[in-house]
Amino acid sequence: MSKSQVNQVGNIFYAQSGGVTSVINASAAGLIETARKYPDRFPKIYAGKNGIIGALQEELIDVSQESDETISLLKSTPGGAFGSCRYKLKSIETHQQEYERLIEVFKAHNIRYFFYNGGGDSQDTAYKVSQLSEKMGYPIQCVGIPKTIDNDLPITDNCPGFGSVAKYVAVSTREASLDIASMAASSTKVFVFEVMGRHAGWIAAAGGLAQEQEGDGPHLILMPEVAVDEELLYQKVQACVEKNGYCVIVVSEGIKTPSGEFFSAAGGKDAFGHQQLGGVAPALANKIGQKLGYKFHWAVADYLQRSARHISSAVDVEQAYAVGKHAVELALEGLSGVMPTIVRTSNAPYQWELGHVEISQVANVEKTMPLSFITEDGCGITDEARQYLRPLIMGEDYPEYENGLPKIARLKKVLVPQKLAPFKV
Amino acid sequence: MSKSQVNQVGNIFYAQSGGVTSVINASAAGLIETARKYPDRFPKIYAGKNGIIGALQEELIDVSQESDETISLLKSTPGGAFGSCRYKLKSIETHQQEYERLIEVFKAHNIRYFFYNGGGDSQDTAYKVSQLSEKMGYPIQCVGIPKTIDNDLPITDNCPGFGSVAKYVAVSTREASLDIASMAASSTKVFVFEVMGRHAGWIAAAGGLAQEQEGDGPHLILMPEVAVDEELLYQKVQACVEKNGYCVIVVSEGIKTPSGEFFSAAGGKDAFGHQQLGGVAPALANKIGQKLGYKFHWAVADYLQRSARHISSAVDVEQAYAVGKHAVELALEGLSGVMPTIVRTSNAPYQWELGHVEISQVANVEKTMPLSFITEDGCGITDEARQYLRPLIMGEDYPEYENGLPKIARLKKVLVPQKLAPFKV
Repeated sequence: MSKSQVNQVGNIFYAQSGGVTSVINASAAGLIETARKYPDRFPKIYAGKNGIIGALQEELIDVSQESDETISLLKSTPGGAFGSCRYKLKSIETHQQEYERLIEVFKAHNIRYFFYNGGGDSQDTAYKVSQLSEKMGYPIQCVGIPKTIDNDLPITDNCPGFGSVAKYVAVSTREASLDIASMAASSTKVFVFEVMGRHAGWIAAAGGLAQEQEGDGPHLILMPEVAVDEELLYQKVQACVEKNGYCVIVVSEGIKTPSGEFFSAAGGKDAFGHQQLGGVAPALANKIGQKLGYKFHWAVADYLQRSARHISSAVDVEQAYAVGKHAVELALEGLSGVMPTIVRTSNAPYQWELGHVEISQVANVEKTMPLSFITEDGCGITDEARQYLRPLIMGEDYPEYENGLPKIARLKKVLVPQKLAPFKV
Repeated sequence: MSKSQVNQVGNIFYAQSGGVTSVINASAAGLIETARKYPDRFPKIYAGKNGIIGALQEELIDVSQESDETISLLKSTPGGAFGSCRYKLKSIETHQQEYERLIEVFKAHNIRYFFYNGGGDSQDTAYKVSQLSEKMGYPIQCVGIPKTIDNDLPITDNCPGFGSVAKYVAVSTREASLDIASMAASSTKVFVFEVMGRHAGWIAAAGGLAQEQEGDGPHLILMPEVAVDEELLYQKVQACVEKNGYCVIVVSEGIKTPSGEFFSAAGGKDAFGHQQLGGVAPALANKIGQKLGYKFHWAVADYLQRSARHISSAVDVEQAYAVGKHAVELALEGLSGVMPTIVRTSNAPYQWELGHVEISQVANVEKTMPLSFITEDGCGITDEARQYLRPLIMGEDYPEYENGLPKIARLKKVLVPQKLAPFKV
C-alpha cells in the first residue's frame, strides 16, 4: 500500500478478469459512474477489451462513448460486458517484456489508474501491476476489485458474485425439490444437482438454504471438503428415500474420492492450468441408480448459475456496485495496491460496511469453507453456515424486461486508436 | 360431450397427472377457488394423493382443510402440490376392475365431478373416466384441464406450463450467451444447453427468442423435427465460431440421428413405456470439442426448467389459473367429457380467450411443431415461430419471497377416512 501518487491526474484502465458473474458489470457500473463524477481527475476511462489482454494488445474500449443509460443498464446485465480472460501475468523477473509493454501502453494513453476486477488469480495480476510503480518507476495506482462466484477470496467477508449464485442454487434446489416430491411415489426418487465449486463447497452449501423444514430438500450436500465414501453415500441415499420418499442431492463439481482425486474429470485444462471439471451429476446419479435401482434425474447448471442475473440477490448487486464505487474512492484517497472488502458488522439484522486490504494479502490465497459450516456427517450445513449464507441471498433485484426478456446493456465498444506497434500475447 | 347431468350436487375429485410444471398448482388454485364459491353444488373438494392412484387407493386429500391463504399460495408454488403420477388407465374392455374400483370410490364419497389436470396421456385417462357415465351407468361429469410443458396438446393454442418453461429457457439462453461472449476470445467457445422435448422442439425453439440481434445467441437450435447430420453440424459450429467468436447451441433432449434413433439415451423407460432421455448436451459437446478442438461447456436444466416458478411468465400463470377456473364453469354448465382450451384471437396485441373441446379429440394426439416454424437450414426458428412464441413468455409473475427464497404453499394433506377395502394398483 502506498500513498506516493496522491492527487495525480490521469486516465483509468479498467478490466474484467477470470470467470464472469451475474454482477461483475454492476461493479463496472459502480466504478464508471463514480469516476465520471471526477472528470478533472480522470479525463478518460478505458476498459480492456477482454481483460488484461486488451492492455497488452492496446485494445482499449473508450468508455466515454457509452451513454449514461447504457452504463446504468450494466447493473442488470450478466457476463463481462467488456470481455474477460483467464490470463495471469508471469513474474516481473522472468517476463519483464510483458510489464514493459504494459507501461508502454499506459504511457501512450496516459493511464495512471489501473482497476482490476477479478478473483484470486486476477488479484495476483493486480498485485504485480501494483509493483510496476516501485520496480519500474511508472507512477500507476492499482486497485483490485473483488469478484468471484467461488467466494474464495480471503479477508473480505464474501465476494460479489457469490450471493447471486447462492440465491440461484438455493431457489433452484427448492423448486426442483418440490417437483421431485410431487412425483416420487411412482417416478423419480433421486435427483442430483451439480453446481460449481472446484475446491470449496460454498456454492453447494448455499443449496442447503432451500431446506426450511425437516424433510425438505436438499437432503444431502456433497462438497469438496469431504471426500465421498461411495458405500456410505449409497446407504444415506437409501435411508433418505425410505424416510422421505425421495432424495435431493446438491453436489459440487469438485468433490473428491478418498484418495484425493476428482470424482469426475471432464478432461482438458484451462489457461491457468486447472483441470476442467464437469459431469459429476450424471456419473453420480447413474451409480446411485445402478446400485439402488431408483429412478433418477440430474441437472448440471454450469454457466446458467453464474449468469442468472434474473434471480440475483439484491444484497449481492448492491455490494458489487459498492466495491466498484469504493475502488475509485480508494484511488482518490491516493491508495494503491489495495482491494475493497466487505466487512460484516452484524448477522441479525445483517449489516455490512466497506473496508480495504492490501492486494498482496489476497493474491493467490484461497479461502476454504470453515469446517464448522459442515455437519458432522459431512453431508449438510450447520446453523453457523446458515447464519453466514442467509444474508447474502436476501432481496431480489429484478432486471427490467422488454418483450418478455431481460433488457441488457449493449456497449458500442469503440476502440481507442492505437499508437503502438502490435504485441503478441 | 353430454349435458345429461345438469345441476347435480356432488363432491369434486381433482387430480394432477404426469410430469408437473411450475404452474399446475395455479390451475389447482383456479379450480378450488372457483368451486369454493358454489358450496351448495360442490359440498366437498377432494384431491387425489398422487393423482389417479389416489382415487384407486381411496387416498383422498380433504381440500376443505386447507386455508384460503394456502390455496392462494398454490398460484406461486411449483411442482404438483397434491402429488402426481404417471399412471394410465387401461381400456375399460380389458381392465374393467380398475373402473369398477373408481366407481366404488366415487360412490363411497359421493364424487360426481372428476377433474383431471394433465397432458396427452392424462387426457386419455380423463376420456376413459368420462365414458364411465355411459358405459357403467355412474353419473359423473368429467372435465380435463390442460397441462404440459411440452406444448403438444392439439386444438388448444398452447398448453399451460409451456410458456413458463419457454421463458426460463429464453432467459437462461440469453444470460448464458452473454457469459460465453465475455470469455470466448480466450476461453470457452462452444456452449451446449440441453432442454426438454422428447418428440417436439417447442421448448428448444423458445430458446431462439433470446436472439434479438444478428450475432446474438443462440446460434443453433437442434430440434427432434430435424435429424442431426453430424458432419454438417460441425461445419456450422465452426463457421459460427469463426464469424461470431463463439457458438451457443440449444438442443432438445429428443434429437435424432438420420436413422431415426435418439441421439442419446440415458437408459431406462418411464411408466408409460417411454425411453428415458438425457445427456445429449455432454455427448454433443464432447463430440464437437473432439472434432473442432474448441473449449466447450454444457448445461442440462432437467427439472430446473419445469419447476422454475421464480421466472414463470405472467401469461402462463394467468392461463393456468384460467383453465382451472373454467373447468369448474364448464361443469356448472353441465358439460362432461370436455377440456378448456386457450384460443388465440390476436397476435399483436396478444389476445386470447377460453374455449373448450371434447376430450376425445385431444386424448393421445400429439401436436408437433409446424415445419414452418423451423428455418430452412433446420437450425433456427422463423418469424412465424417468434410471433407464436413471444406472447407466451410475456410478463413476470414473481412469487413472494421470505428469507431470500420463494414462499411456498405447504398443504396439510389430511386424508378423508377410508370406507373401502384396500385396492392394489
